[in-house]
Amino acid sequence: MGNAESGIPNREGAPVMDESPFLALVRRRRSVRKFKPDPVPDEMIRSCVEAARLAPSAENVQPWRFAAVRTPELRAKLAEAAFSGIYRFTRWAEQAPVIVAVSARLDFLANRVGTHLQGTQYYLLDLGIAGEHLMLRAVELGLGGCWIGWFDAKRAAKALGTPRNERLTSLLALGFPAEDPEDLPPKKRLAIEDILKLV
Amino acid sequence: MGNAESGIPNREGAPVMDESPFLALVRRRRSVRKFKPDPVPDEMIRSCVEAARLAPSAENVQPWRFAAVRTPELRAKLAEAAFSGIYRFTRWAEQAPVIVAVSARLDFLANRVGTHLQGTQYYLLDLGIAGEHLMLRAVELGLGGCWIGWFDAKRAAKALGTPRNERLTSLLALGFPAEDPEDLPPKKRLAIEDILKLV
Repeated sequence: MGNAESGIPNREGAPVMDESPFLALVRRRRSVRKFKPDPVPDEMIRSCVEAARLAPSAENVQPWRFAAVRTPELRAKLAEAAFSGIYRFTRWAEQAPVIVAVSARLDFLANRVGTHLQGTQYYLLDLGIAGEHLMLRAVELGLGGCWIGWFDAKRAAKALGTPRNERLTSLLALGFPAEDPEDLPPKKRLAIEDILKLV
Repeated sequence: MGNAESGIPNREGAPVMDESPFLALVRRRRSVRKFKPDPVPDEMIRSCVEAARLAPSAENVQPWRFAAVRTPELRAKLAEAAFSGIYRFTRWAEQAPVIVAVSARLDFLANRVGTHLQGTQYYLLDLGIAGEHLMLRAVELGLGGCWIGWFDAKRAAKALGTPRNERLTSLLALGFPAEDPEDLPPKKRLAIEDILKLV
């Protein structure tokens, strides 16, 4: 560990290790779709949401709302609603001990102005940021999981009783991984040159 | 540091510190709008984008593209285009040594299907996730910054020469903070009970 030769200077001009704790966490994060049946302690769920709670958002409106579904009956009801028909390929998520439903409150002026003026649903950026805080804290706690966008959001919201002023946008499957993320094949990603221009 | 009484059990049943390195990083992250004039080394920018590169995305399409604007001429041109008229309140960002323009490539089937079927611009979740990876790595490196959504995206894209198949969605101001984030007032956030339901 530690590569003092990587040449990234810090504020004082000393080299900074390229292999940072945060990069290590980011590398450990994999999309986990197989879970042990062990339940996830509520305190772990709270700690994950604590990380999300501290995220930034446009005008600090904090549009995110989380419903952590962990009772078997409600999980089954949610899975039936969310993962049927064209969405059946996401059915694996039914086996996750926890499914966190992530919704956005849409009744904020900032969201309405942004969407109207710029044609962009900016609250989704906020939910991406906060949801990823949650997921990275989960990885730190030894949990694993996966973002799910491919599900029947209307039927899922009905099954969960999501309030009318919220829009259900994502499900986060969470649990203890049944396989070691380090045994998974390497992440496939574009090269840095393909995604970054220095200008 | 370290609160062995916090009662969060890990996989082996031993308590886990609530004050985790990741939560500490998340707490250190503040929206920084005042910067020292010092330039940000390119290697630091690359390391931030490396964190973003490893982020998850729907169908792994990796829609994110980053243009790190750090030459004074282009920054001034970008600021003039992006922060005029109703967007002038974001003019402070002109002083940031680096402005990272974050764009989404929209010509992916996954994005078009999701937007069409579900009425949701899912690529924004991906950009939120990846952009926050970038920002948290920046905090780890001693940098600070701020997500910017309030800017003239069309004029900014023109000033930057953003390709037509990309949609410019956010600017990230980056630099060495001119004030110690720990001296800023505490973050104002909703209580965890207001954003989390355990069901």
